[in-house]
Amino acid sequence: MEKGLFITFEGPDGSGKTTVSTAVTERLSNEGYKVRYTREPGGSEIAEEIRGIILDPKNTEMDVRTEALLYAASRRQHLVEKVLPALEEGITVISDRFVDSSLAYQGCGRKIGIEAVYEINQFAIEGHMPDRTIFLNVDAKVGLERIHRGRAVLDRLDMESIEFHERVYNGYKEVVSRYQDRMIVIDANRDVNEVIEDAYSAVKELLDA
Amino acid sequence: MEKGLFITFEGPDGSGKTTVSTAVTERLSNEGYKVRYTREPGGSEIAEEIRGIILDPKNTEMDVRTEALLYAASRRQHLVEKVLPALEEGITVISDRFVDSSLAYQGCGRKIGIEAVYEINQFAIEGHMPDRTIFLNVDAKVGLERIHRGRAVLDRLDMESIEFHERVYNGYKEVVSRYQDRMIVIDANRDVNEVIEDAYSAVKELLDA
Repeated sequence: MEKGLFITFEGPDGSGKTTVSTAVTERLSNEGYKVRYTREPGGSEIAEEIRGIILDPKNTEMDVRTEALLYAASRRQHLVEKVLPALEEGITVISDRFVDSSLAYQGCGRKIGIEAVYEINQFAIEGHMPDRTIFLNVDAKVGLERIHRGRAVLDRLDMESIEFHERVYNGYKEVVSRYQDRMIVIDANRDVNEVIEDAYSAVKELLDA
Repeated sequence: MEKGLFITFEGPDGSGKTTVSTAVTERLSNEGYKVRYTREPGGSEIAEEIRGIILDPKNTEMDVRTEALLYAASRRQHLVEKVLPALEEGITVISDRFVDSSLAYQGCGRKIGIEAVYEINQFAIEGHMPDRTIFLNVDAKVGLERIHRGRAVLDRLDMESIEFHERVYNGYKEVVSRYQDRMIVIDANRDVNEVIEDAYSAVKELLDA
């Protein structure tokens, strides 16, 4: 049996990743494609527990390298328990965030450096990089405005400064240029329905190839 | 002010690490030396939570690389919150296990390989290797017999097979030969009081140097 495609959605906060990737999955699924939406921790109990530690607003003492290692641990467990078995069954997996998020957020946002974060993530994923990545390109400020409008309670990550989000945005730009071959860049400053339309067409084309 | 020494105690299960390292710390402390005993997670709340996930017997689905990343995360947090501040204050830190444990247990016991485990630990500790390491050399079988005699309830790690413990022992042998310069090897197949005596003399000599 042919393996499923591994497709990730990436982009800064407020780029609409979750809205767009779930909409695309649903539409393709309704058309009969074997696709599955996931995001870390994605129902892996262990990954869920790890994520709980990372996002707990009371853990303000958390060192940035501890955080990066915990993301890599959660990613590993989700990959092994959820992503790889689905790909083996021939299901296309659409993942809302993956390694590129750590490169941008921990590597640049937290200033650890892309190379160092890349190394621990390679340990975690053992070469299982996405086949293709849809990058939703939104300006840092547009993204932040969307978040603050939409949510009443902010978690620990949301409380970070605009400077942090700008570093993340620049990190993503570096990641996109580093992995040009697998990147599909979509302008996400537009209305979400236009973004969904473009993302849907791009993924459909991959599945029909 | 002069920095404290960073001394670790290592060895397979049942080598008497905890008994010996706490006894040595107490004796030196009573003699007026500025020494502090610690072991991961060592009272760091975040490291404690991470350790809880690793040792939870219900987490049987845990992938070996997830486990290795979690140990590195817990180590990082304990190092930053507890070890480095004490060393800065001129206190000698005696740590019951550190990086070498991961090289032996995850690298060899879990068969990930020493090199790969070394890499993620370097990310975690950023070069803060111990100044000296007391290696309590006990045969895998002697060690296991001691554990099973002493405890009523076994945690997830204790339930592993004797083959696992033999791989750990061989891992330690490789680690000891790789880091000869900082290793002080003590025969721990003997009565614990003799082991304490030798370890005490060795550490006292380092502090008086």
